[in-house]
Amino acid sequence: MNPIEELKHEFTEITRLNYIRALLGWDEQVNLPHGAFEGRAMQNALMSKIVHKKLISDKLGKLIKKAEKLTDLNLIDAATLREAKRAYELEVKLPTELVEEIAKTASLGHSKWVEARKKDDFSIFQPLLEKMIGLQIEVASKLETHPDPYSTLIDLYEPGATNDWIANIFNESRPKLIKIIKKLDSSSDKPDFSILTQKWSSDEQWKFSIEVIKKLNFDLEHGRQDKSAHPFTTSLSSTDTRITTRINEDFFSTCLFGTIHECGHGLYQMGFMEKIHDTIIADGCSMGIHESQSRMWENMVGRSKEFWKFWYPKLEKRFPKNLKRKSMEDFYRSINTVQPSLIRVDADEVTYGMHVILRFEMEKDIIEGKVQVGELPELWNDKMEELLGVTPPSDADGVLQDVHWSSGYFGYFPTYFLGNLYGAQIYRDALKKNPSLPEEYQNGNFSNLLTYLRENVHQYGKIYPANELIKRITGEDLNPNYFIEYIEKKFYPIYGF
Amino acid sequence: MNPIEELKHEFTEITRLNYIRALLGWDEQVNLPHGAFEGRAMQNALMSKIVHKKLISDKLGKLIKKAEKLTDLNLIDAATLREAKRAYELEVKLPTELVEEIAKTASLGHSKWVEARKKDDFSIFQPLLEKMIGLQIEVASKLETHPDPYSTLIDLYEPGATNDWIANIFNESRPKLIKIIKKLDSSSDKPDFSILTQKWSSDEQWKFSIEVIKKLNFDLEHGRQDKSAHPFTTSLSSTDTRITTRINEDFFSTCLFGTIHECGHGLYQMGFMEKIHDTIIADGCSMGIHESQSRMWENMVGRSKEFWKFWYPKLEKRFPKNLKRKSMEDFYRSINTVQPSLIRVDADEVTYGMHVILRFEMEKDIIEGKVQVGELPELWNDKMEELLGVTPPSDADGVLQDVHWSSGYFGYFPTYFLGNLYGAQIYRDALKKNPSLPEEYQNGNFSNLLTYLRENVHQYGKIYPANELIKRITGEDLNPNYFIEYIEKKFYPIYGF
Repeated sequence: MNPIEELKHEFTEITRLNYIRALLGWDEQVNLPHGAFEGRAMQNALMSKIVHKKLISDKLGKLIKKAEKLTDLNLIDAATLREAKRAYELEVKLPTELVEEIAKTASLGHSKWVEARKKDDFSIFQPLLEKMIGLQIEVASKLETHPDPYSTLIDLYEPGATNDWIANIFNESRPKLIKIIKKLDSSSDKPDFSILTQKWSSDEQWKFSIEVIKKLNFDLEHGRQDKSAHPFTTSLSSTDTRITTRINEDFFSTCLFGTIHECGHGLYQMGFMEKIHDTIIADGCSMGIHESQSRMWENMVGRSKEFWKFWYPKLEKRFPKNLKRKSMEDFYRSINTVQPSLIRVDADEVTYGMHVILRFEMEKDIIEGKVQVGELPELWNDKMEELLGVTPPSDADGVLQDVHWSSGYFGYFPTYFLGNLYGAQIYRDALKKNPSLPEEYQNGNFSNLLTYLRENVHQYGKIYPANELIKRITGEDLNPNYFIEYIEKKFYPIYGF
Repeated sequence: MNPIEELKHEFTEITRLNYIRALLGWDEQVNLPHGAFEGRAMQNALMSKIVHKKLISDKLGKLIKKAEKLTDLNLIDAATLREAKRAYELEVKLPTELVEEIAKTASLGHSKWVEARKKDDFSIFQPLLEKMIGLQIEVASKLETHPDPYSTLIDLYEPGATNDWIANIFNESRPKLIKIIKKLDSSSDKPDFSILTQKWSSDEQWKFSIEVIKKLNFDLEHGRQDKSAHPFTTSLSSTDTRITTRINEDFFSTCLFGTIHECGHGLYQMGFMEKIHDTIIADGCSMGIHESQSRMWENMVGRSKEFWKFWYPKLEKRFPKNLKRKSMEDFYRSINTVQPSLIRVDADEVTYGMHVILRFEMEKDIIEGKVQVGELPELWNDKMEELLGVTPPSDADGVLQDVHWSSGYFGYFPTYFLGNLYGAQIYRDALKKNPSLPEEYQNGNFSNLLTYLRENVHQYGKIYPANELIKRITGEDLNPNYFIEYIEKKFYPIYGF
């Protein structure tokens, strides 16, 4: 057999084992009885071990070497080889003890982080965070994908991206966003946010969310929506993609926009070309591109006026009391309230990027050893003041708010903002090629945007790296100005400018 | 390391892999989107392959040989070795091609069976059934656990049981049951079955079923109930046991008694001593003993008068319209209606055994080649007339009603009736040792029966084989007369004798 075919065969098994691990994880978050976590942890560990053994096998190493000698690989085979090598090297370059140490530290770190956040006491988390940072620096030095360690970590989530490239992009956006935020803040005609903080029946919220994803062409023959504490998207095979949401009776946005966000991730996962189903390249090409899909559907579509021209009458029927004496325009403005705030996950489209920039800049200094862990709380608060003009009253609402660092995810945060930027650039192209899209939303037709995304993004999975993909689609590299343009065009009118 | 300890370690991994397979299966029946079956099938096959490889490994064979040389094994170690050897031999004695051929035939056979049943045309299923019978005869000849092939197949589900032993027991019960059925049928004061066939709200049925299992001490911290097309019980670890039920709006018994039945299985699975958790002996000791638990809770408890003295007022509150002008006594009698009928799964406690005896007698002749597959429909109808005095109007309601044969389950049916017999004998002992049990049910206390079952049955898992277990508990071998006694004592008064 051709070494590429053999490699594909091996990785199809590995991919299937990873789908099974995904089922263990999905079930853990959606169904697992409280007393069953320990047993599940042992099953997770066993499956990790089986996958690890398959990945580090000599057989795989030899196959990759043989395959690398082949020339004229087609697109799919080349991507397969690239991703196979990436997965193999990640596994062989990291000593098992290091991986185990990270897993242990993450597990203990998570519980310490929960405790520290609860008691609003950073010092409880500090020793574990210090240890985790040390381990992540070690990971970077073992992998050495890039000369600087932070870029190596970023590369784990956004293949090919580097610290410098991201810094350039973020630095360009930063002053522009600050200017916009200040201008919006100066408006004398702000939206009425309180519309969203009435009592919203859980049951009706759930039903509405299902109604919406059906219309957005989330395929319930090949997926489902459930509830979990933290919304997420996972694929249990290339024909089984599941999203979750959570419901807050006191705040409308949590459920619906969470649903649309995950639906955006889900549509990506559902759209890989059949030829690559259940292979190593049946996945999003980078976290940033994945996030572009979720944010596009959530914000550019789901928070657009045209979207609500279709949905508002249906929402009124479900919640007649909540929306009595409110207009569609009131509602549209309320879901687009811009407000510097403390918590990233609750931030609006405009201020969101600042939360990410803060983390990106801090992470770089942390991984390069330029700041001590003990200084982080103060540094965080200073940066919040600088970027958003607010100072967290407590570390719980500051440096302790995110779970990521406790799990060792350094380099992950920047992909969130990259997602917004990729999203704006791709959406601009979609509108250029299909100017009638927003009009179609008004009539409840969302399939042409999906068709565009399927054709240009989804079908390819990991075939093209992010930088190639964006250039193929839009003819240029990632350009953060499209996001700024989008923000200005949308939010100035909302705020009466 | 001691070979027994090594064996335990190996089988703990195998057990965990089997739990993961159980999750794949549970999810398939409870959650899987319609378009995702193919992908799941590939995952099932992959996990089977991984377990198969582990089971047939030389390492395991050698460990078993070494362990067999050890003397003075304690109970747990002896049972571990026995079950390890059983699992190993089952895997090595059956050629992979045979196992694959059975899987393929079962898969195709199932679809042909569905079609044949739908079109009421046995000839569609006949060729596949013939093939499956041939394969099962081959299985028996490879395993040769007993001199006669049908006993070898029975042994797969009821270890240690043989055709002759079961035939003796069934032959003793058969005329007695026929006598009882005839007597009940002659009554002029029969229950009003129509109470159960009103419209029963799905939602209230579901809530009531949850209320009941909570009271029966089904531990929702270590388990859950969901809905599926066919009710079943499965463990995803020794601390995660899940049951399912189905709801029929037009028939009350389906959901509640299905729930209590599976709850009985579930309580067994939840009750293994902690020392054997997640090991190869953390399972029911035989299908018959397992069924004794489900049938005991379903019928001896759940269809008892004392049970309803507690629950009927609660049921009245949930279904005031359905139970208006009905008494607890009316209801109690209706759920204990005895009626010769065509379909096994819908049969009452009294006639149920006859359905099983029919299948047992036919299976023996089939496996011994004494009847041709083409003769089965007629033979079925003749036996139904002989045993229950009814003749199926169609093969769909006759020989085609059960899924088992299409899957190759020959030797499984007798365990259903054995379950009733074991159940009656164990329950008699429980009442002898705890005469106040029924009185306790009236007060909503079901924990003393569970304590008794935990102590005498559940905790041991597979430590004792069924024949040893029943003797340890009741001081004698399985004695079918206790079931007959129980039936007479319960049903004669209901029918006014």
